[in-house]
Amino acid sequence: MTPRIGVIGGGQLARMLFSAALDLDIEVSFLVRPTDEGILGRAANVVVVGDLSFESIAQFASGVDVLTFEHELTPVATLHALEERGVCLRPSAKTMEVAANKLAQRELFGRLKLPIPRFAKLNRDTVFDLPCIAKTISGGYDGRGVRWINEATELEPLADDSVEWLVEELLEVEGELAVLTVSSADGDITTYPPVRTIQREGICVEVQWPATMTGDIDERAQATATAIARELGAVGVLAVEFFVVGGKLYVNEIAPRVHNSGHLTIEAASTSQFENHLRAVAGLPLGPTNFNTPATMVNLIGPLNPIADYQAVPDTRLHLYGKTPRAGRKVGHVTATATSAAAASQLAHRARDRIVSGG
Amino acid sequence: MTPRIGVIGGGQLARMLFSAALDLDIEVSFLVRPTDEGILGRAANVVVVGDLSFESIAQFASGVDVLTFEHELTPVATLHALEERGVCLRPSAKTMEVAANKLAQRELFGRLKLPIPRFAKLNRDTVFDLPCIAKTISGGYDGRGVRWINEATELEPLADDSVEWLVEELLEVEGELAVLTVSSADGDITTYPPVRTIQREGICVEVQWPATMTGDIDERAQATATAIARELGAVGVLAVEFFVVGGKLYVNEIAPRVHNSGHLTIEAASTSQFENHLRAVAGLPLGPTNFNTPATMVNLIGPLNPIADYQAVPDTRLHLYGKTPRAGRKVGHVTATATSAAAASQLAHRARDRIVSGG
Repeated sequence: MTPRIGVIGGGQLARMLFSAALDLDIEVSFLVRPTDEGILGRAANVVVVGDLSFESIAQFASGVDVLTFEHELTPVATLHALEERGVCLRPSAKTMEVAANKLAQRELFGRLKLPIPRFAKLNRDTVFDLPCIAKTISGGYDGRGVRWINEATELEPLADDSVEWLVEELLEVEGELAVLTVSSADGDITTYPPVRTIQREGICVEVQWPATMTGDIDERAQATATAIARELGAVGVLAVEFFVVGGKLYVNEIAPRVHNSGHLTIEAASTSQFENHLRAVAGLPLGPTNFNTPATMVNLIGPLNPIADYQAVPDTRLHLYGKTPRAGRKVGHVTATATSAAAASQLAHRARDRIVSGG
Repeated sequence: MTPRIGVIGGGQLARMLFSAALDLDIEVSFLVRPTDEGILGRAANVVVVGDLSFESIAQFASGVDVLTFEHELTPVATLHALEERGVCLRPSAKTMEVAANKLAQRELFGRLKLPIPRFAKLNRDTVFDLPCIAKTISGGYDGRGVRWINEATELEPLADDSVEWLVEELLEVEGELAVLTVSSADGDITTYPPVRTIQREGICVEVQWPATMTGDIDERAQATATAIARELGAVGVLAVEFFVVGGKLYVNEIAPRVHNSGHLTIEAASTSQFENHLRAVAGLPLGPTNFNTPATMVNLIGPLNPIADYQAVPDTRLHLYGKTPRAGRKVGHVTATATSAAAASQLAHRARDRIVSGG
């Protein structure tokens, strides 16, 4: 029998995992906070809890064979306690612990001798070249927990903040890449070809394949991502984000889960990242990761026009998440396929401009 | 607000409608017989009833804005009674009445002066050239309710059967095509390009696009299918199946719903047939129907190997339906994309042979 999978989380990543599970005929359940409830409201097997306590998760885990995650919000101590109780976590508590902590990530990159932007843990004595970037050591996403720092006085309140921050060198970035790795439960690691990611105000707004980088950057990015996944003992999808600076790759961040940079695999790759994550977590053989067409994904951010007014654009696919729009909130995405990433980008933007209110 | 859609049915077509509804963020509910329960067990909003009675359907309809169908099993009198009660049916009771009855279909084809195989309603006095085909006038599908007749004595029990039969000329068929039409609620009709369908023992086993027919057969098939959809007042997807005989098109059958011949639109067309059916039924603008890659779909029939043993084939996508295997029962399908339908067919068969037990 295929294991029953429990997913901690109920946002759009969980929703797309659910779609993939339908086609694979894998039984998935979701542990969801009340704020996410609407997003997965159309799936059965949704358990809503007030918080991600040990008791809530342990009870949820008793009805499934393996737990996986759509976010890094579960306290690390809880994850270790669950494993000690015998709950199967994929990825493991150890992987989640490193991946959820930007300082631990950077120590790992250092052990692997990977180039990363210069950084320091922020405290009252920290002296660092300005301008720089400040990031919370855990809990940030989609531009939250990230600040552009121009003046030393801006660092003072962060040094006294209730959460820990680090500061990081501001690089002259030529472009950004992401590589999705997929690790099976018994240690096979495969990667999707690198995609180019385009950010605005700290939020990923567009993802393209092929990334059309020069030289052997694609190969080096895949080799680096594989080394990170191996060192971390990852299971399932692990996303590795890179800066390209002067033809050199700097590791930016990692996420031990399905990732916004992989949504275009639904339409454009042999196996979607969601299916491959489920395959890995369920102990099934991984699916092929080749892209079979150039593609571009554009996130839909902000209020949308009524779907009744939306004339779909050929060769594009719309994915709505059932989320209430808020400033900067991703409420859907559109993926276009074409004969080049640039042509796909044009189509995806045409669709985006028709559906995003005021777009 | 987008209308809430109620689907009468809970098989694989309902399951794929559910997947499409997730991405469109449309609320769908399903009225399901106990035999189908497992197939949609992972969706919320599944109502299980013992039979498709007026009372069951009327109660189900009270919770949605519009009803649609994944099969033609609802009694026609019930459909008319629901409409008289004010329930919005898409397609209408009248469309369903004609489409569910092979004799009424043939009268319609006659009105439109469309070539069809010679036929007669079967009774004790019927004289007909042999060999021929006998078909139940309503209720048949996937080879059920179809007989190859070689001897006149084989017709006698059918003439006395509790259900009505017709007999039909056995044509020397060179190939079969299907055209999916999509009709919006306000009368726009569009079609997908024709696909080639390959049958074995009355069951569709493979579907290819492009159909690679000679001359203007594609255009004629689309024009004929459009005329049928218009005459029927269809709403949503209506499938029209054709025989090709000596370069001439004969209309075979129609189905007023999403159809096995359109499953490859999930991967290979701008808009899947499932999304377009929902768009039409919900009163939304229809999506583009172009294919953006050659593709082949192969049905998975019979027991499957464990998914844990299945090594996926590049450029193929597996769709499992959650059904218990029985002889001749479709339990899933696989779609391959490639640079030609023939190349896609090879990939799809390779995947099929790996997953079908003894395949």
